[in-house]
Amino acid sequence: MAQNESEPRIQNLPIGTGAIGKRIESDSMGEIAVAADHYWGAQTERSLHHFAIGTDRMPIEVCRAYGYVKKAAALVNGEFGLLPEWKANLIARVCDEIIRGELDAEFPLFVWQTGSGTQTNMNVNEVISNRAIQLADGKLGSKDPVHPNEHVNLSQSSNDTFPGAMHIATVLAFHEQLIPAVKALKDVIQSKAREWIDVVKLGRTHLQDATPLTVGQEWSGYAAQLEDSMAIIHDSISRLYPLAIGGTAVGTGLNAPPEFGTKVAEEIARMTGRPFVTARNKFAAQASLDPMVNASAALRMLAVALMKTANDLRWLGSGPRAGLHELILPENEPGSSIMPGKVNPTQQEAMVMVCIQVIANDTAVAFAGSQGNFELNAMRPIVIWNVLQSARLLTDACNRFREFGVEGITLDHERVQKYVNDSLMLVTALSPAIGYDKAAQIAHRAMEENLSLREAAVKSGFISAEDFDRIADPAKLVGNPRL
Amino acid sequence: MAQNESEPRIQNLPIGTGAIGKRIESDSMGEIAVAADHYWGAQTERSLHHFAIGTDRMPIEVCRAYGYVKKAAALVNGEFGLLPEWKANLIARVCDEIIRGELDAEFPLFVWQTGSGTQTNMNVNEVISNRAIQLADGKLGSKDPVHPNEHVNLSQSSNDTFPGAMHIATVLAFHEQLIPAVKALKDVIQSKAREWIDVVKLGRTHLQDATPLTVGQEWSGYAAQLEDSMAIIHDSISRLYPLAIGGTAVGTGLNAPPEFGTKVAEEIARMTGRPFVTARNKFAAQASLDPMVNASAALRMLAVALMKTANDLRWLGSGPRAGLHELILPENEPGSSIMPGKVNPTQQEAMVMVCIQVIANDTAVAFAGSQGNFELNAMRPIVIWNVLQSARLLTDACNRFREFGVEGITLDHERVQKYVNDSLMLVTALSPAIGYDKAAQIAHRAMEENLSLREAAVKSGFISAEDFDRIADPAKLVGNPRL
Amino acid sequence: MAQNESEPRIQNLPIGTGAIGKRIESDSMGEIAVAADHYWGAQTERSLHHFAIGTDRMPIEVCRAYGYVKKAAALVNGEFGLLPEWKANLIARVCDEIIRGELDAEFPLFVWQTGSGTQTNMNVNEVISNRAIQLADGKLGSKDPVHPNEHVNLSQSSNDTFPGAMHIATVLAFHEQLIPAVKALKDVIQSKAREWIDVVKLGRTHLQDATPLTVGQEWSGYAAQLEDSMAIIHDSISRLYPLAIGGTAVGTGLNAPPEFGTKVAEEIARMTGRPFVTARNKFAAQASLDPMVNASAALRMLAVALMKTANDLRWLGSGPRAGLHELILPENEPGSSIMPGKVNPTQQEAMVMVCIQVIANDTAVAFAGSQGNFELNAMRPIVIWNVLQSARLLTDACNRFREFGVEGITLDHERVQKYVNDSLMLVTALSPAIGYDKAAQIAHRAMEENLSLREAAVKSGFISAEDFDRIADPAKLVGNPRL
Amino acid sequence: MAQNESEPRIQNLPIGTGAIGKRIESDSMGEIAVAADHYWGAQTERSLHHFAIGTDRMPIEVCRAYGYVKKAAALVNGEFGLLPEWKANLIARVCDEIIRGELDAEFPLFVWQTGSGTQTNMNVNEVISNRAIQLADGKLGSKDPVHPNEHVNLSQSSNDTFPGAMHIATVLAFHEQLIPAVKALKDVIQSKAREWIDVVKLGRTHLQDATPLTVGQEWSGYAAQLEDSMAIIHDSISRLYPLAIGGTAVGTGLNAPPEFGTKVAEEIARMTGRPFVTARNKFAAQASLDPMVNASAALRMLAVALMKTANDLRWLGSGPRAGLHELILPENEPGSSIMPGKVNPTQQEAMVMVCIQVIANDTAVAFAGSQGNFELNAMRPIVIWNVLQSARLLTDACNRFREFGVEGITLDHERVQKYVNDSLMLVTALSPAIGYDKAAQIAHRAMEENLSLREAAVKSGFISAEDFDRIADPAKLVGNPRL
Repeated sequence: MAQNESEPRIQNLPIGTGAIGKRIESDSMGEIAVAADHYWGAQTERSLHHFAIGTDRMPIEVCRAYGYVKKAAALVNGEFGLLPEWKANLIARVCDEIIRGELDAEFPLFVWQTGSGTQTNMNVNEVISNRAIQLADGKLGSKDPVHPNEHVNLSQSSNDTFPGAMHIATVLAFHEQLIPAVKALKDVIQSKAREWIDVVKLGRTHLQDATPLTVGQEWSGYAAQLEDSMAIIHDSISRLYPLAIGGTAVGTGLNAPPEFGTKVAEEIARMTGRPFVTARNKFAAQASLDPMVNASAALRMLAVALMKTANDLRWLGSGPRAGLHELILPENEPGSSIMPGKVNPTQQEAMVMVCIQVIANDTAVAFAGSQGNFELNAMRPIVIWNVLQSARLLTDACNRFREFGVEGITLDHERVQKYVNDSLMLVTALSPAIGYDKAAQIAHRAMEENLSLREAAVKSGFISAEDFDRIADPAKLVGNPRL
Repeated sequence: MAQNESEPRIQNLPIGTGAIGKRIESDSMGEIAVAADHYWGAQTERSLHHFAIGTDRMPIEVCRAYGYVKKAAALVNGEFGLLPEWKANLIARVCDEIIRGELDAEFPLFVWQTGSGTQTNMNVNEVISNRAIQLADGKLGSKDPVHPNEHVNLSQSSNDTFPGAMHIATVLAFHEQLIPAVKALKDVIQSKAREWIDVVKLGRTHLQDATPLTVGQEWSGYAAQLEDSMAIIHDSISRLYPLAIGGTAVGTGLNAPPEFGTKVAEEIARMTGRPFVTARNKFAAQASLDPMVNASAALRMLAVALMKTANDLRWLGSGPRAGLHELILPENEPGSSIMPGKVNPTQQEAMVMVCIQVIANDTAVAFAGSQGNFELNAMRPIVIWNVLQSARLLTDACNRFREFGVEGITLDHERVQKYVNDSLMLVTALSPAIGYDKAAQIAHRAMEENLSLREAAVKSGFISAEDFDRIADPAKLVGNPRL
Repeated sequence: MAQNESEPRIQNLPIGTGAIGKRIESDSMGEIAVAADHYWGAQTERSLHHFAIGTDRMPIEVCRAYGYVKKAAALVNGEFGLLPEWKANLIARVCDEIIRGELDAEFPLFVWQTGSGTQTNMNVNEVISNRAIQLADGKLGSKDPVHPNEHVNLSQSSNDTFPGAMHIATVLAFHEQLIPAVKALKDVIQSKAREWIDVVKLGRTHLQDATPLTVGQEWSGYAAQLEDSMAIIHDSISRLYPLAIGGTAVGTGLNAPPEFGTKVAEEIARMTGRPFVTARNKFAAQASLDPMVNASAALRMLAVALMKTANDLRWLGSGPRAGLHELILPENEPGSSIMPGKVNPTQQEAMVMVCIQVIANDTAVAFAGSQGNFELNAMRPIVIWNVLQSARLLTDACNRFREFGVEGITLDHERVQKYVNDSLMLVTALSPAIGYDKAAQIAHRAMEENLSLREAAVKSGFISAEDFDRIADPAKLVGNPRL
Repeated sequence: MAQNESEPRIQNLPIGTGAIGKRIESDSMGEIAVAADHYWGAQTERSLHHFAIGTDRMPIEVCRAYGYVKKAAALVNGEFGLLPEWKANLIARVCDEIIRGELDAEFPLFVWQTGSGTQTNMNVNEVISNRAIQLADGKLGSKDPVHPNEHVNLSQSSNDTFPGAMHIATVLAFHEQLIPAVKALKDVIQSKAREWIDVVKLGRTHLQDATPLTVGQEWSGYAAQLEDSMAIIHDSISRLYPLAIGGTAVGTGLNAPPEFGTKVAEEIARMTGRPFVTARNKFAAQASLDPMVNASAALRMLAVALMKTANDLRWLGSGPRAGLHELILPENEPGSSIMPGKVNPTQQEAMVMVCIQVIANDTAVAFAGSQGNFELNAMRPIVIWNVLQSARLLTDACNRFREFGVEGITLDHERVQKYVNDSLMLVTALSPAIGYDKAAQIAHRAMEENLSLREAAVKSGFISAEDFDRIADPAKLVGNPRL
């Protein structure tokens, strides 16, 4: 290739074209005018025109992840002698600007575009090309000395790089945003669990009064669910490390050197600090979206777990006078436009809605994941959009929920105690002593005659008051909460 | 065609071949042995062999509905002179046996078969053929004098008759099973609403105490939701009346007389008493499953409505001592294997699970409905199976829920009254008199100082005790419940 | 109430506070600083702080629809003498600014907030209050002379107005945006159907060669599906006309005059030109989201129909050399970053993705719709967000698909003809003449010996060449396409 | 407890009560008549009466898995001295009958019952009790010497044992049924991949002609997807090993010895050969269904992968004359009731429908999984029913698909070759030599002038015929397929 080109002087120019009006760009379909103050080229412009659908844009995380892909590819192409070193370095330099978010404004494409993400790949290629051209003192749109297809996209296809950018963006969103947020929430829940580990409360199964446990035990369950969800998310991340890059158009690696995929993956691993590798089977990696479907399922798992906790908290905080009201939820804002003094479990509601949305987004991902054909699953933008939206919603919702919905929770100790005192289900403890059937008779009698369990037990003649007090002591019925 | 055949003597034989062992049947792929005590033929047998997947069978309602289709087709073929009258009548006679359910044991096919339902169509054709042959004193498997394809399937294809059988089966299931069950449930709810129309209770929004309404008003909402769902189900039925029959293989009506579809629909309308008509556009009718997707959405609407009611009832019945317990739910069975005397809202739970299943089944229907290609949507068995299962589940669940979960509900009047007395949200009624902000101050003070609302109001100095009693009288705050 | 206030001078001020820095606003929880260049107040500010979740905002259509609600309420409050006429008119005047979109920048709240939408209601109330105060030469934040709760929200609650705003926004989006877009697409499809009504092509069922039909017949099916979907959307709109307004907090109408709901609905009907009415049962209207779930199902129906058409078009356009290629799809942009000259069915892919998203959004709506409790379904923001997003996506996708994906389609007549010539399925036409079994033999032989159907038929001896040509004439096998 | 009872003589009786008519059984709600020829008791009978909903029954796998649970519990209770050894052994003996499927007819309960599965637990308890009583020469229904609650259910609750039975049933279904079926399918696919590893074919992306690969490479992608899915299923199994048993009613272990859960899990591990352990946090284990939701997601992953393969195969087999027809699918049965000689991809269709159903079932599981409250997720029957149905459908569908849909596939070599010869996308190989833009010109010209790529290339003057033949040799463009 172009190894004989002499290296131009590379300038140190701030981002921005400094131009106004329109500039003519071209691609294999011909010429088209683009906004002169932007770096993008003909294919980006065509996409903006043809795919003005809704308001959602390709997540910027994908474009930044493409920064890693294009940088790694340029360096490896340089290593293989396919690009002169200065050109590889020039491309890499622009990629650094992308990775740092400095070129975010150059990636305007809509989500609902070609199913391969080709237009976003070309958007990245065009922006890198023109920014590099600018730095090399060339003419924007000239594709010289850095051509979007021949240099920036060298040894690559959308079909192998877009999946790569998806995986990188998802891994980073999970690792750097989501997991810390879940972890912080879990830590707060766990500290509450420890704080209340000895506070005996009445359990509820089927919404009905059951045997006692401690508030701390109940909260330890919330924490355990979050821990398990985090483990499942970690598992899903490990399946995102294999990258399709190196397969090019259909998985065979046409137009790429044999070791290209391996070396690019190593480079990306080095840059991100995450153990990305080249995918064992490129045909599956390009024809399916399976690792993304699996990642989405992990988000759904978290949503399922969070929904239980959020629902429990709003029910336990219900009232104040005609609800359960074991918990006192933080008051963040007036709850009603008409009912003065009303306070509502709004963080819990927001969390429940976020969880439902994540579960629904996940159905889009699975559906799209099933619709591949032959050498490509061309449902990529919908998948990455839903997965990143879900990750973002869960991240933010965990943070807000923790700050405004959980940290400030306190106990209504009086109410907690009253439920334990009133309950009939301590009768369960009598079962080993007097048998299930007699115990059931006592419980029914207490209900019918509106007695306390102790009264009904003693009246029944099946057990003495002393034995009752010894056996049906709530504090003894909760096992060892400190285990 | 075969109009010159002389009419055989038709015998009056009970159902049953009286044979044991195997019988040889054949189709265009060759010979195959079938169980001699059954009427089905080669294609049914092949399907049993090739599609042994799971345990679910093609719903018998589809096969019975096919009885109407085949009978109507035979009579119209006779009318057009394509079948001799005796043969049309003979086929029709066997169809009556199918419609009456007398041949149910002859339809053994699995749900998960060819996507067009062709194998079930051939199952029906083969059974009619052999049963007719038996009645005409012929040899089973000889296809003489009644051939499964040339006579029973005359002027038809699976592609136009299977959709027809789907529509008929669905209309009958909705009209004769589901709607009466929903109506009966709604009637019981409505009578409870009338009974309790003046019982003032505390409302709850966001699970938090709100302003009062009457128990009857609350229940009138449940009834109204069911009424609206029934109306939507009726709408969906009206879109099932157009039948694809007459389109044959791809919608053009090849091998069928021009007026065949119109006349068959008229005949089916006459037999069923429902206003079936021929579909305006056969290409859409065969290439899509849209009216079935719409019918499934109507079932989902009902499920969404029922889930709210079932959840409300189990929450309002929660306790007995540590829950809301405004309602006393019927006790149908012991609730726990370990907790004596525990009673759980099991009918409500069963209803909630049924609703979730219906919502999930509906996603299968919509997904399958989107997967048509060209002249056929070949995802028919999954759709009819899910729709009829949902209809059956809702029918039975409404009946059980009514009998065992709703009819026996009584009020815990004491608890209902206590919540009204304790509540702070009657403060809302003060708002027009003293303004929202002062009213809010009163509510907050009552909460913080654990006062009754009346105490806090009087202490505040914003309102006199007399004015409070006049304005914040719960019975006045519920509007006119008898409207 | 405040009827004795004297009317202030109302000024004619452009929108904008002209202030910089912060302004102190207050609510029942105390004071808080807000951006001085905005009209919103304390509760909006609290919501921004507590619900920074994701990037999606409450759809502006909801806020504009609230303009109708608040205007109608103000005028009816004026009519009832609850507001002085000048104050009612002043509120109405600000509402007109909202309806016209002039105050769009004042509604910054996130979707994932309180489940009742109370914060958006208060956002609207606060903006109207402060803008009205400005026009009346008052002090921003003073709530005088127009108080957000006592005047703008007079006789209302979030629980009855937010559902109203949802219904209005949805009706307008469906009527004014979606239906015209679907109609325009259907018209283009129908004109193609007419253009190609006599072009005979080979039908396909199960993806396999079937009997012929005309291209126009096939396209008439696409048009019919869209017509049916539009009818279902219209049905769903009719169920959105009943409004909850007048029910206030829990459906009883506390703090609102008895005829308030009826009169507000009449006013809204007058303003929008759509037949809104007051809901028959306010308890159901506030405790459920059923009409929205039903509307979402109608959108899903359209998505299911569009997905079939989009898939058919991309398959029929597949190739150019190794696919079906009966259709030549418009070339809008280069299809590949690596394969020169490749053109892809990108509009079809975008449409398929949009359809999948709409189907997934609908599952969020149904799920949320099932999660109501007692007097309120507090899952409102998620529902309106999904429904309006789906409506917008379908609107835009129909428009782009029509412009760039359908209008430019032409036929590859040569390929269409070749498939008809080569096909074996014309054998179906022989069935009535020679019987199904012999016809099947001919088809199998042609396949095995790689003959044309005609050759195999004549060789079989079952039919003469003359009879074959007479019977198996494709043009005769398509029925009457002009019907 | 009852350790002082003397051991009765245990007889060796065949299964069957030998009685006719009715027998009176009782529970804490009173007496009820049950069919005398069955072992079940009062609570089973009540459930049959109250929950006659649909036709689906609690999967027998759950009841058999309960055999392991009850056996292990009895043995551990014996070990702890809570049951006399002879009684523990007697219970264990009946459990062996259950495990072997000999008592299958005794478990008639409907799926849609109490959400905890208590009725199935009691069904098992009652059957073991009465069968044990029979063997001990007692009176059926007497609960002596083996009481369903006090002995069979000793140290247990439904809330900890039903989840255990769910996990055991799922692990066994996955390990012993599903994975072998997937593995066998993968092996057949892999052997085809090896067979066709050198057969060059044209790739397709976006359904459009792309660059070549080999048939074997394409099939290696199918195999890789199945391998990855199996790995994910294995991961999901590992999360099912922790068992809730030992938590009893609400997770505290009330009425069970401290080490009960650990020892029972060890016993179950020993009996099943699978590494079951006691759950770390019983509160999460009983209040959630998270490991089941995760297992369902793994099934969905497999369904997503299988759907791609099934769809590819039916498209690649489409035709025979007007489709792609690279593959010749096995002919298992006549495809059409009206079109003679038509053969359809019916196994592929059945597989696609199964995959859609599995995806839909999974939404039921996730929804139900999110609906837990407090100490119990009472949505257990719906979850186990869907998971086991999905596992069964996938197992059978993989087996049938392999046998009848994949093993018999052969190549239409002629067609495969023709597509390679005709294609324009070999132009991609020219790109490195002549540049992307010139290569695109060649491709466009070939298309427009209906030339072969070689003709267009040479005419273009950009490349010589010799260079073209050297560079654009399909066999060189597929990389190294034997890697």
